[in-house]
Amino acid sequence: MSYLPVSADNAFLLFDVLKADEQLQRLPAHAATDRALMQQVLEEAGKWVGEVVAPLSREGDEIGCRLKDGKVSTPPGFAQAYQDFWQAGWPALACAEEDGGQGLPWVLEGVLYEWLSAANHGWTMAPGLLHGAYECLKHHGSEALKAQYLGKIASGQWLATMCLTEAHAGSDLGLVRTQAEPMGDTALGASHAVTGTKIFISGGEHDLTDNIVHLVLARLPGAPAGPRGLSLFLVPKLLPEGQRNAVVCERIEEKMGLHGSPTCVMRFDGATGWLIGREGAGLNAMFVMMNAARLHVALQGVGLLDAAWQKARAYALERRQMRAPGAVSASRGPGDAADLLIEHPALRRTLDVQRAWVDGGRVLAYQTGIYLDQARHAEAAKEREQAQQWCSLITPVLKAAWTQQAFDGASACLQVFGGHGYMREWGVEQIVRDARVAMIYEGTNEIQAIDLLVRKLLPDEGQVFGQWLLFLRKSLDASRALDAEVLRRLAELRYFSTLLVQGCKEDETLAWRVADDFLRCVAVLLMGWAWARIAAAPGTEGQRWQGPLQAVTQRVLPEMDWRLQLMKAQWRQTSMVHGVQAAAQSA
Amino acid sequence: MSYLPVSADNAFLLFDVLKADEQLQRLPAHAATDRALMQQVLEEAGKWVGEVVAPLSREGDEIGCRLKDGKVSTPPGFAQAYQDFWQAGWPALACAEEDGGQGLPWVLEGVLYEWLSAANHGWTMAPGLLHGAYECLKHHGSEALKAQYLGKIASGQWLATMCLTEAHAGSDLGLVRTQAEPMGDTALGASHAVTGTKIFISGGEHDLTDNIVHLVLARLPGAPAGPRGLSLFLVPKLLPEGQRNAVVCERIEEKMGLHGSPTCVMRFDGATGWLIGREGAGLNAMFVMMNAARLHVALQGVGLLDAAWQKARAYALERRQMRAPGAVSASRGPGDAADLLIEHPALRRTLDVQRAWVDGGRVLAYQTGIYLDQARHAEAAKEREQAQQWCSLITPVLKAAWTQQAFDGASACLQVFGGHGYMREWGVEQIVRDARVAMIYEGTNEIQAIDLLVRKLLPDEGQVFGQWLLFLRKSLDASRALDAEVLRRLAELRYFSTLLVQGCKEDETLAWRVADDFLRCVAVLLMGWAWARIAAAPGTEGQRWQGPLQAVTQRVLPEMDWRLQLMKAQWRQTSMVHGVQAAAQSA
Repeated sequence: MSYLPVSADNAFLLFDVLKADEQLQRLPAHAATDRALMQQVLEEAGKWVGEVVAPLSREGDEIGCRLKDGKVSTPPGFAQAYQDFWQAGWPALACAEEDGGQGLPWVLEGVLYEWLSAANHGWTMAPGLLHGAYECLKHHGSEALKAQYLGKIASGQWLATMCLTEAHAGSDLGLVRTQAEPMGDTALGASHAVTGTKIFISGGEHDLTDNIVHLVLARLPGAPAGPRGLSLFLVPKLLPEGQRNAVVCERIEEKMGLHGSPTCVMRFDGATGWLIGREGAGLNAMFVMMNAARLHVALQGVGLLDAAWQKARAYALERRQMRAPGAVSASRGPGDAADLLIEHPALRRTLDVQRAWVDGGRVLAYQTGIYLDQARHAEAAKEREQAQQWCSLITPVLKAAWTQQAFDGASACLQVFGGHGYMREWGVEQIVRDARVAMIYEGTNEIQAIDLLVRKLLPDEGQVFGQWLLFLRKSLDASRALDAEVLRRLAELRYFSTLLVQGCKEDETLAWRVADDFLRCVAVLLMGWAWARIAAAPGTEGQRWQGPLQAVTQRVLPEMDWRLQLMKAQWRQTSMVHGVQAAAQSA
Repeated sequence: MSYLPVSADNAFLLFDVLKADEQLQRLPAHAATDRALMQQVLEEAGKWVGEVVAPLSREGDEIGCRLKDGKVSTPPGFAQAYQDFWQAGWPALACAEEDGGQGLPWVLEGVLYEWLSAANHGWTMAPGLLHGAYECLKHHGSEALKAQYLGKIASGQWLATMCLTEAHAGSDLGLVRTQAEPMGDTALGASHAVTGTKIFISGGEHDLTDNIVHLVLARLPGAPAGPRGLSLFLVPKLLPEGQRNAVVCERIEEKMGLHGSPTCVMRFDGATGWLIGREGAGLNAMFVMMNAARLHVALQGVGLLDAAWQKARAYALERRQMRAPGAVSASRGPGDAADLLIEHPALRRTLDVQRAWVDGGRVLAYQTGIYLDQARHAEAAKEREQAQQWCSLITPVLKAAWTQQAFDGASACLQVFGGHGYMREWGVEQIVRDARVAMIYEGTNEIQAIDLLVRKLLPDEGQVFGQWLLFLRKSLDASRALDAEVLRRLAELRYFSTLLVQGCKEDETLAWRVADDFLRCVAVLLMGWAWARIAAAPGTEGQRWQGPLQAVTQRVLPEMDWRLQLMKAQWRQTSMVHGVQAAAQSA
């Protein structure tokens, strides 16, 4: 059984819970984007994803990608599906109309990529970088470069890569060594010869499109060491005149999963490239779309978890093993010697908890997507700024918490299958393997936690964070049980965060020691907030919503108390800092 | 880098912390088993495992097992390593001298299998079932069967399988359908024709030994439905006269990991077999060694986690990325633009937490292994009974908690590598994949939790459990900080367990709803107890032990508060039982 989007579910969260249409139509750019239009787009997208992309996932994993004579072949059906995809206009969904796009809100693209990831994570890696490359080139590229490349990237006719990592430079891009030597002038402007080897390049080489546009971080001669010496270059696989550029795929990595996506080692042998943006502002140009890219990854987590849940739920509704205590007699036929798995409390709980994370994640990621649109298009500067603040604070939380949940939750769904879950044929173990990488790429989850605490909370001593909590508070109603619980925890976290700001002044490593737990607290609070929003919407009375809602109250929210306790233990350790240093020394 | 046992570490825990030699020498059977002898055995074993078995692990994963013309070939080197293994006498370590064994304590075999699993989980699956088959045959087999098979199984010259699972009967063996028809008398006694298909048979067919001895659960004609209708049969691959029995390997399963072990679908086409034990007592005969088998699986968890830790620690001591706050300047050379990973607080914590679970797991599993020996060999009946109680209570906890930790902890170790962890070449992702199955086999972790609460705690209303807590208390010293903390939690759990006994009387499904959380509470308490024992031993002052010890206090023990809170939420739900039933009905 391959993944099938249930677009009515997503539409319910978008429109009935979040009123996405009302939020978006206040923006001049989306004044005409009403619910009917968006719902129609989603229905078509869901149908296409379920029919075309999802069925390719298992062979994608089993056959994988092959490198032969410098050419990479993707698994059966991948290339045709990609041709269908771009020719139907899906990559251009949220690109500007002036670039040949459809000018629809980012949030719709978010839903599309959630489904694609759920259906076939490996295939989705290829177009997954397109929109980021589009925004990067649009905002930082020269007119000549844009004239040559922007339209093809917007439409998806050509795919793009991000060439950042080197063998010795992963999380720490400041260590990048690839060189760019100035060369002669060309029709596209001053060119450079780019030389170096990049690793972990998703879609570095493939048979999905004729050309591939590489965005490469490199150093100009005399550039300072560290991140400020990095510039960004556009290096196409095929040069404008049609001949091959000096870019070679040396190897495809053998990975734990994601076999449908060729993860390439790319060698640039004095390849011709053109500067994007200013010299030394390479990270800047690349990180313009960082929030959107990280939100994409969060939605991969949401999608993969939903895919695992779909499989486990279907199995639990069909497989019988042992008597379940308190099982409903209606679910047991006269010849049944055992009860359905879904009647077993531990397995039902597993399903409800994962469902809670999927729907909670959707509410949060979709709202963040709407704020991404508002941050670009809102008329009032203050509104744009507030939307930006939301994105900036929440994105690392969504990326880290939902990719972690995708892995842990997919593993929990595998457990529902018992021994069968460990076998390839049911496809759930593939989700566990595929999902694991999302905890690492686009900034490891540990880096997301440091981003939230060290870069977002501490610099202004928690001002914006405190305002954001107050903003959350406004949409809660203390007369509802879940809202009251969330309000209580919100106040607790607010108080704690002021203590934390003080504590971090006194102890230079405290923030790093508590960052992961702090992020979890924010994630749990957000789950409470999202589900308070869901519970307040009409039509959530049935078990479809009440089961996960109960899981949020009973199993998700209490994590905050535990995390606060873990952080407080680090406080008490403040006087032991020297002990920790001694520890490091003896390692 | 393949796994390398550090036998001095294990010996420290066995002898300096647990005084294994004193505990064992009190038993007449092991009066001569002194520390020097055991330490020598361990040193040789560790050396052999590190040199012979560990280097075969990666190819074992990559090449895997192949089925061709009914024959299964294991990965390169596996067969030769197995020949070395049994000819050196390792399988016979803990078998009785009268059966050709060495008569050493079970706990030494436990350490050996921990190392073997860490070094090469796939290879270890084959001999992993030997000792269980040996005990089963020894206690339940007829003299004729023993004369033919016991010696060969004790020595490991022939390997054995457990054929339990069928496609529709996994956790629920009562559903097994394989039939056994009485046939004529033979030299080995009355024979039966066994017909049916078994799945998930580890080592069902292979090239490691000439003969394979299958222990098969099947039903005699007219046997009642359910578990009481099951009998156990010995069905050899080669009949005593040398001809092939009607047993066929139909398929090798494609799995998430453990590719070095052939997981077979075995078809019995009227194969000749002989009854082991009484008719209808098949589960009984098979479960005689259940505690030992589950303890083996717990030790697989310990070993796999140690293997992941070894890899991650070595990487963290060599790889530099970014500046670490509070890093020790001594670890930074003049040309180093970044700090060692081990200096980053989040990664150091990951390593310390996993180290804590490895060493805590060793103390607990070794002590349980010693009690297994005491339960068999102690002179006083009361001593045997107490030892048996410990094993019966603790084994499900060790199996569930340490297999879970092996998977979660190996994934945490993978994270230390960043993107490199997701690549095959570092071998850590293999550990994550291999470890996942241990949460399922020998009774899923959910079944372990039900075993602890529903079968061990509730039937006597917590009497034995309460006595066991008092027994734990005796070895703690309230004047030590960690001990005092553990004592406090012990009292809390004792009080809570009496409430739970009462609550389960009033609510028929409560036990099933809280079983997993209850098991975690016991696991966390045991971690505290184990580390209190370690901390009290001389020679644990250095960072090798103090780092993990701090992790236990700061990160492991607080989980109990959270779990108690989760269980209390289920209490409040008692009045909502009808809501849950309605939920099941609507599913």
